[in-house]
Amino acid sequence: MSHSTIDQGAAWQALKQHAGEMRRIHLKTLFADSSERFRRYSRKAAGLTLDLSKQRWNEETLELLLALAREAQVPEAIEAMLQGELVNRSEDRPALHTALRLPADTSLRVDGEDLVPGVHATLDHMASMVDKLHAGQWRGATGKAIEDVVNLGVGGSDLGPLMVTRALVDFRVHPAHPIEVHFASTMDGSQLADYLSRFNPETTLFVLSSKSFTTVDTLSNARTAQEWLMSRLVSSRQANCGEEDSRIDESLVLRQHFIGVSANCEKMCDWGIAKANQLEFWEWVGGRYSLWGAIGLPIALVVGMDNFRELLAGAHVMDRHFHSAALEDNLPVLLALAGIWNVNFLDIRAHSILPYDGRLEYFASYLEQLEMESNGKSATHDGQVVDYSTCPVLWGELGPNAQHAFYQLLHQGTQSVECDFIAPLRRYDHVEDPDTRRHLKAQHRMTLANCFAQSRLLMLGDDAIADAAPRPAYKRYRGNQPSTTVLLDRLTPSTLGALIALYEHKVFVQATIWGINPFDQWGVELGKQIAGETEKILSTREGLERMDESSQGLIEALWLAEGEEK
Amino acid sequence: MSHSTIDQGAAWQALKQHAGEMRRIHLKTLFADSSERFRRYSRKAAGLTLDLSKQRWNEETLELLLALAREAQVPEAIEAMLQGELVNRSEDRPALHTALRLPADTSLRVDGEDLVPGVHATLDHMASMVDKLHAGQWRGATGKAIEDVVNLGVGGSDLGPLMVTRALVDFRVHPAHPIEVHFASTMDGSQLADYLSRFNPETTLFVLSSKSFTTVDTLSNARTAQEWLMSRLVSSRQANCGEEDSRIDESLVLRQHFIGVSANCEKMCDWGIAKANQLEFWEWVGGRYSLWGAIGLPIALVVGMDNFRELLAGAHVMDRHFHSAALEDNLPVLLALAGIWNVNFLDIRAHSILPYDGRLEYFASYLEQLEMESNGKSATHDGQVVDYSTCPVLWGELGPNAQHAFYQLLHQGTQSVECDFIAPLRRYDHVEDPDTRRHLKAQHRMTLANCFAQSRLLMLGDDAIADAAPRPAYKRYRGNQPSTTVLLDRLTPSTLGALIALYEHKVFVQATIWGINPFDQWGVELGKQIAGETEKILSTREGLERMDESSQGLIEALWLAEGEEK
Repeated sequence: MSHSTIDQGAAWQALKQHAGEMRRIHLKTLFADSSERFRRYSRKAAGLTLDLSKQRWNEETLELLLALAREAQVPEAIEAMLQGELVNRSEDRPALHTALRLPADTSLRVDGEDLVPGVHATLDHMASMVDKLHAGQWRGATGKAIEDVVNLGVGGSDLGPLMVTRALVDFRVHPAHPIEVHFASTMDGSQLADYLSRFNPETTLFVLSSKSFTTVDTLSNARTAQEWLMSRLVSSRQANCGEEDSRIDESLVLRQHFIGVSANCEKMCDWGIAKANQLEFWEWVGGRYSLWGAIGLPIALVVGMDNFRELLAGAHVMDRHFHSAALEDNLPVLLALAGIWNVNFLDIRAHSILPYDGRLEYFASYLEQLEMESNGKSATHDGQVVDYSTCPVLWGELGPNAQHAFYQLLHQGTQSVECDFIAPLRRYDHVEDPDTRRHLKAQHRMTLANCFAQSRLLMLGDDAIADAAPRPAYKRYRGNQPSTTVLLDRLTPSTLGALIALYEHKVFVQATIWGINPFDQWGVELGKQIAGETEKILSTREGLERMDESSQGLIEALWLAEGEEK
Repeated sequence: MSHSTIDQGAAWQALKQHAGEMRRIHLKTLFADSSERFRRYSRKAAGLTLDLSKQRWNEETLELLLALAREAQVPEAIEAMLQGELVNRSEDRPALHTALRLPADTSLRVDGEDLVPGVHATLDHMASMVDKLHAGQWRGATGKAIEDVVNLGVGGSDLGPLMVTRALVDFRVHPAHPIEVHFASTMDGSQLADYLSRFNPETTLFVLSSKSFTTVDTLSNARTAQEWLMSRLVSSRQANCGEEDSRIDESLVLRQHFIGVSANCEKMCDWGIAKANQLEFWEWVGGRYSLWGAIGLPIALVVGMDNFRELLAGAHVMDRHFHSAALEDNLPVLLALAGIWNVNFLDIRAHSILPYDGRLEYFASYLEQLEMESNGKSATHDGQVVDYSTCPVLWGELGPNAQHAFYQLLHQGTQSVECDFIAPLRRYDHVEDPDTRRHLKAQHRMTLANCFAQSRLLMLGDDAIADAAPRPAYKRYRGNQPSTTVLLDRLTPSTLGALIALYEHKVFVQATIWGINPFDQWGVELGKQIAGETEKILSTREGLERMDESSQGLIEALWLAEGEEK
């Protein structure tokens, strides 16, 4: 069956009809009507427990959704992706982030070449950099050991490493020579300006992370950083340079203060990154799927290579599960089908990500990119514009904090929203002081109680309390909001790897059913072009007449403000 | 006309009919068909420029929306709120955050009492605390000056101060004795645990911020913090206490290491906050509207009282504009009407907040709470359940970063989304080093170019480029996504105050039209109750049978994990 007509197929039509009935049934009724819902709709794999029993579905729904997955050839698509076929069709290449986490003793031949040795060569290169920095042997241009590492990257080159380093804060290593890792992503220089005002140029190293090495946000931060280093470190630029500094020239600063991470070695060379400081990855790794390799350098610096390899191992366990588990037991497939059901058949257009663990503070942002950039598409592989919804709007926040922020809307608003609750079962086992440990463990338990209570209340509404007294309208809760709960045994490098891989594969399954390509991002290209043209008008003050009236008005407001500056 | 039937009124019906035509007209056509759109649909006030020309509306739409506002008695509602009438009807009290920013030489009598002197007495109390801390005269129990202040609060007691202190980073004061301000909000103790592992208890002060002083998240963090201080500072708890420490008892630690900020003085006393360390606010200030008074203490500590008063003054300028400007020139009213048009007549259920300034990194989170907690309601004042949509889902991210994350969905997804672009016109005027200033100013200009380019592209789609070559479907942009642009002359305490007040009042106007109460939050109450009950089951292991099967399954998974711990 052609993907562009998935909504014309038998399974979709059956689901549509079935949804007509299901829309009228409250989630609490589904629980009242059947027993063993938890057993029936929950699954475990790779240290994760997935509870899908609070989805607004029943046995028939799931059967029909599984039929839809088969009709969309999901098993074949999984095989194709993992084997390195050209699943990224618009860019004519494979999508092999899963290859980044293959163990060293495996192999994956694509176009006759085994990819695994190259993957592990890069890991080894990373390891040697990490060793050198942790030993205090990586020295800046003036001979002092590097102390601060600033990752300059945006999107996939920022969110992945940022999210994981925060999530694994309890797994920080404490090497002989401590290194602080920082992130600067914003194009406007906000974060960077703050660092430059505080850090010592002699002991600061920048990691330039950009798959294409043409990302203007990152390169403009890099130029500002470079200017800052050169003006402070290079002898010839300094008015009264002493004898001992006379050897410091620009090439020495480049060599000692910059690492490049990219799929484009030529551009790294052009920029001036020393060959030995280049960490390579490959065109077949999408930016938002890239934390598993060289882009993960900041992660390895914070948690060490052993933990980084554990992260890969955890993801690999999920990859194998995804590959081998039957559809009806396959966590990513089931998670994807729940989403399809909500978006396409229950018309639920918003999806909230609610981790109940402060360490996962960037997880929602990470998923926003992963899901919306992957599946915020409307053209199928064969060029048809879809008639159905694809990716919903995703947003989120730490669950306990969101309880005090936007849960009001989830409970009493007019919008239907699907929620993902994410929490670790065990925590704070390793806090040393017994009193503090006891207090923190109590806080963790209370957090879990809130997590369970909220999904229950979203499901049942007013029925969640025994109190049968009549309540005024403004105190009523309608319930019937579907949710998924993902429990991690503990939050470790391994379970975090599995969790991320779970969502990566969920996205792929949904894309397969929608018939879209989750691995390109043509929707970001035109903006870059228009921004460049606009920047030229702003600078040259020529060409304004080609703009629409709104843009003209905004640009004139800027020019007026710039005039006042002088 | 009764609010519950606003959708039965003439204006709503006329808008509904009008929307039938407008839905078919692409935004680019509206620009092609009329001239002077920017002049017609943009307004300035309080250092802000609001461009609403890229909304999918025309003269007739605006006329009808203004008629709707009059029919919903928006002018009367504005008057009622500002004068202290009982606009928060379900809680039978006024909503007077605007009173917190009234100048000292004004007065506002509510129930015969002038509120202004009390407001300024609290500001003066805050000022004396800030002075003492900035002078190094606030000493911990062992006599050392306080260096680290940790704000323990969540929701409105966290997001407001957090957002503003980050936004005003360039206005940091540098007092004789520097104070570092930190925030811990998450119930699970994540942030707090990190601080406790790094800070010196002798020089750490905690600010307990909670309107009710019953917020379990905050109180549990406070208990953990208290335990940490007591176990380290109190003589009788220490095995080998020296002579000089013999005076240190628990009451001294309470007095020197805790400030309370609350509307509930009795509860502060019960907890042990010294009377002199209590900063009071009032029941008539909603938590999410409370940064303007005592809850703003962390802001004043970071930027100083002068800048804090500037923040209030900027908000007050917007309040006066809101009060006096005609509806058709009234920024909050116009912003609100654009939202009503999108949500209720164009069926756009998602709204993205996109600041183009890294300092506004928490602004989207702040607005998520402000809007969704205020207007995520479905019962009208007179107890009817509405037939129309109220608050949309709001989410956001720094604009340039979101370009690399979820703009893909905005440009090529299947969802209609309204976007707010927010940017300062001028920046980096005060960077000292000329080379760094030049680089950073270029980064700022490029950021504005991106801001303008993205709203243009969202409007025009493919027509934004001259290139007439045929494009494959996956490269096409449909455009027609409406947006608002808010320009700040510069980002200062004053314009930030005005910006926040703009959104506060927007929320109020929308609530007035929808007939709902933006000042209560009954939708968060039941969750607290259920969480308490759940926590009890988790601890006592009794009562599981009263739970639904999903909750049972999740709780049993926890008990299993806890068993493995032992």
